[in-house]
Amino acid sequence: MLLRRIIWVVARGRSPLCDSATVIYPTRQLKCAGCGMVNPSLQSPHSSSSRTFSGLSTTRCGLIYRKMSENGAVPRRGKVLTLDTMNASVKKVEYAVRGPIVQRAVQIEKELKEGVKKPFDEVIKANIGDAHAMGQRPITFFRQVLALCTYPELLDDNTFPEDTKNRARRILQACGGNSIGAYSASQGIECIRQDVARYIERRDGGIPSDPDNIYLSTGASDGIVTILKLLVAGEGRTRTGVMISIPQYPLYSAALAELGAVQINYYLNEEKCWSLDISELKRAVEAARQHCNPRVLCIINPGNPTGQVQSRQCIEDVIRFAAKEGLFLMADEVYQDNVYAEGCQFHSFKKVLFEMGPEYSSTVELASFHSTSKCYMGECGFRGGYMEVINMDPDVKAQLTKLVSVRLCPPVPGQALMDLVVNPPQPGEPSYATFIKERTATLRALAEKAKMTEEILNTVPGISCNPVQGAMYSFPRISLPERAVQEAKAKGVAPDMFYCMKLLEETGICLVPGSGFGQKDGTFHFRMTILPSADKLKVLLNKVKEFHQRFTQQYS
Amino acid sequence: MLLRRIIWVVARGRSPLCDSATVIYPTRQLKCAGCGMVNPSLQSPHSSSSRTFSGLSTTRCGLIYRKMSENGAVPRRGKVLTLDTMNASVKKVEYAVRGPIVQRAVQIEKELKEGVKKPFDEVIKANIGDAHAMGQRPITFFRQVLALCTYPELLDDNTFPEDTKNRARRILQACGGNSIGAYSASQGIECIRQDVARYIERRDGGIPSDPDNIYLSTGASDGIVTILKLLVAGEGRTRTGVMISIPQYPLYSAALAELGAVQINYYLNEEKCWSLDISELKRAVEAARQHCNPRVLCIINPGNPTGQVQSRQCIEDVIRFAAKEGLFLMADEVYQDNVYAEGCQFHSFKKVLFEMGPEYSSTVELASFHSTSKCYMGECGFRGGYMEVINMDPDVKAQLTKLVSVRLCPPVPGQALMDLVVNPPQPGEPSYATFIKERTATLRALAEKAKMTEEILNTVPGISCNPVQGAMYSFPRISLPERAVQEAKAKGVAPDMFYCMKLLEETGICLVPGSGFGQKDGTFHFRMTILPSADKLKVLLNKVKEFHQRFTQQYS
Repeated sequence: MLLRRIIWVVARGRSPLCDSATVIYPTRQLKCAGCGMVNPSLQSPHSSSSRTFSGLSTTRCGLIYRKMSENGAVPRRGKVLTLDTMNASVKKVEYAVRGPIVQRAVQIEKELKEGVKKPFDEVIKANIGDAHAMGQRPITFFRQVLALCTYPELLDDNTFPEDTKNRARRILQACGGNSIGAYSASQGIECIRQDVARYIERRDGGIPSDPDNIYLSTGASDGIVTILKLLVAGEGRTRTGVMISIPQYPLYSAALAELGAVQINYYLNEEKCWSLDISELKRAVEAARQHCNPRVLCIINPGNPTGQVQSRQCIEDVIRFAAKEGLFLMADEVYQDNVYAEGCQFHSFKKVLFEMGPEYSSTVELASFHSTSKCYMGECGFRGGYMEVINMDPDVKAQLTKLVSVRLCPPVPGQALMDLVVNPPQPGEPSYATFIKERTATLRALAEKAKMTEEILNTVPGISCNPVQGAMYSFPRISLPERAVQEAKAKGVAPDMFYCMKLLEETGICLVPGSGFGQKDGTFHFRMTILPSADKLKVLLNKVKEFHQRFTQQYS
Repeated sequence: MLLRRIIWVVARGRSPLCDSATVIYPTRQLKCAGCGMVNPSLQSPHSSSSRTFSGLSTTRCGLIYRKMSENGAVPRRGKVLTLDTMNASVKKVEYAVRGPIVQRAVQIEKELKEGVKKPFDEVIKANIGDAHAMGQRPITFFRQVLALCTYPELLDDNTFPEDTKNRARRILQACGGNSIGAYSASQGIECIRQDVARYIERRDGGIPSDPDNIYLSTGASDGIVTILKLLVAGEGRTRTGVMISIPQYPLYSAALAELGAVQINYYLNEEKCWSLDISELKRAVEAARQHCNPRVLCIINPGNPTGQVQSRQCIEDVIRFAAKEGLFLMADEVYQDNVYAEGCQFHSFKKVLFEMGPEYSSTVELASFHSTSKCYMGECGFRGGYMEVINMDPDVKAQLTKLVSVRLCPPVPGQALMDLVVNPPQPGEPSYATFIKERTATLRALAEKAKMTEEILNTVPGISCNPVQGAMYSFPRISLPERAVQEAKAKGVAPDMFYCMKLLEETGICLVPGSGFGQKDGTFHFRMTILPSADKLKVLLNKVKEFHQRFTQQYS
């Protein structure tokens, strides 16, 4: 009754203070002028307290509702920045790897600390490739050199091996005022870019790399977004289309949403171990040409979240396709050392491109990305990375340099770390033996855990997992009973989100639902890192197994 | 003659490979279809070699010119990404602090190394607030704790004071796996956000600060761009307008260009020591309302590049203005410890806002920014920073948290450093005395150099310099002879750029011309940091003095 007497207004488009532009629809129906939903306030977080609510509020559909007093006077002041008046592109951004399920996991951790009883003692965050958080130890050599760079007084300390000191001195000499607290050149410290170029040359069997084509970055994500930023142009049917794999790493879809680019999905072939079919690329680009201007093809190799490692032949085919269709290639190669499966080998796009001869190597535009966060280093917190650009128009390169200069420089400790990654201890140097031992142990353990993950998951009826050939994740397919799918839909959540949320609440295991990465309609997956220690991973996989059986039974 | 026989085409809008959309205007006139300039190629870097040029090229006006063979055949393959087909917003970005003059400075440094004779021995980069590069020493306590966090084995080293170890342990305990190599929460490590909130409370005389309103960032720049990103919306006349001071720090204009927001200039009053007049704000916002939707007011206090420190009264007036006009306030307060002039004091916008009572403190939306890069720390390379958001709509805050999560997290070493800045050694702790000594010495030296800069520059006829009340720069006005202005214009460069370039070539001193920051038409300035050591700064100022006299004579 009381509710009925309340008069609501829907204010759209601008701050209510800008009277000239405020459009006010008085309505008793509470029908949203944007999405047409009737009574959207019932779905708003304020619905239960709508009678006492007196300011501005927003509904899920994104409109602003403002309560008027009975005499129709509108309160004088509202917020400048609301869901309704904010950047619409930002609203479209989604990033499942740190989405609602992770927020709930953080909440549960707090509840556990406060003594709330749960059927488990700890939350295990297997949602993100965060090696150190999962107990992986940093490489001693890296941290010693970084400590020396941070506090150069330690250069007099005899406990540090001589080669760590030489490295630190070399890095410091390249810094303004010999301090990693100085800004570097925006493209990155020159001698580090030279080291990166030499690393690429060694990796690619001597194919030359030009330090001028290397840009250090704040993690690989920063590099990827920067290149996309250059590429996005046009309006309507001429708007830039960017081809990304499905499943994908959601940085891509998030960046495209923010930049307002057109996302073009190409599906990886789950039946063939998540391989890439050129016919699917062709289908996708041709369909996209109807409504946008496809200009970019993104590849993640080794794959995230899908763990496949591309064959040399496949990479060649992709390059030929990109050349034929006039696409700029972006190769996300941050897992280049994470290759486990027998018969698999990492081939960089750069190397294959140059081996294909000048017809390709002098024309196809390519940007390749690497990072300090993955492989055997796992140094995510330092936000180190680099990109190499090949065949980029020199004028565009000047624009790129200008663009990165606005943010001054990538974090210098991350740059220093990137230097150590591309230029590790050499045979004969004091730190060599320990470095090799540590690196080998980490990569061997990852290979074992990749195998174990596949094996245990494939013993579960209703779960089928492709071999984890590389990277750091399994992405198994899960069968969900129809009744569970219906219940999830009734709740308005994706069925695999429903599954993962239940898993989290019952076992404390935090995974990311496949819907956060994209998947073929009607299929369901989750992504799970292989990073926990072998013992812990085994327990975790068996808990997933038990949960899946329980879940299946419950909803059958 | 030969030139006449060449047929040029102007290709616009898309890659030449997309035949369907390529628009080709054959023309003998070389009139640019974009800017209407006739014979733009004459101003292009390729003009002198146009007869031998055979690929794609670009003119200053941003169009692509492609030479056709005499029979009119267009070469088959062009670049996907060219000046013509790239993101037009990125092209509009300018960032003078690292612009052409700095690029030339780097070149000259290389030439000096190669033994090229110059009238000077070294390039002095007084263009950027890069304290360590200018010889300022890092704070020992900060670097000790960071070294301990980086290489925790040092916790067993007896040469580190106990309080540095306690701090390192506390930070490490807040990191995943006790490693600064783990990702943190996207908003920043929780206990660091708590420390920031407590710092703000102490600074602002007890006005409460909520850690949930604190977001750690990759330097202040990152925070500023992120908030602007949320605020930019609308099209045409409803497009978000953002008010920035002129002169301004060019991060603002660069970010607005990239985001496609409308830049609304308000001019600081040079005659009144670069103070801010509310009547000028009013003029600017009213004029802007004709063509856009002014929603944001950016303030830099203490000022960059202008060095003024705002009075409490002025801040109150600005807040009242923002409230009345419905503007979101962005307060760039990265120089909050850099206040030198007698009678001047730093007042945070947050504090003044809350002292104005609930009418303002519960309504005006404010984001305030701080950083590890300036003040007495000068740790630019670590890219540490934070922002505090006040009265932000909770739904928008959720969007902000989502947006920052896409980039995973700010660099953790920078977060740790921010923690130490907001929570320095306390009386009674072993590191306290040294910390205070170092901080005081740095700030005292800066105050002396601020004074010296003003005094020496004001002895030069034709240079007039306002007091450097705060921040790290002088921004003196320079009189340029009419003949110099004409010569610069004939060369197509801004007169103060012409002046600064000549100064660089003749003395090795690298300054940024006022045109890079914006200035009233017909006035000319440069920005110069006060960061070099007192001895060096004196030499530098006297060199500028001599140069200015020589320059004036030469062109009079």
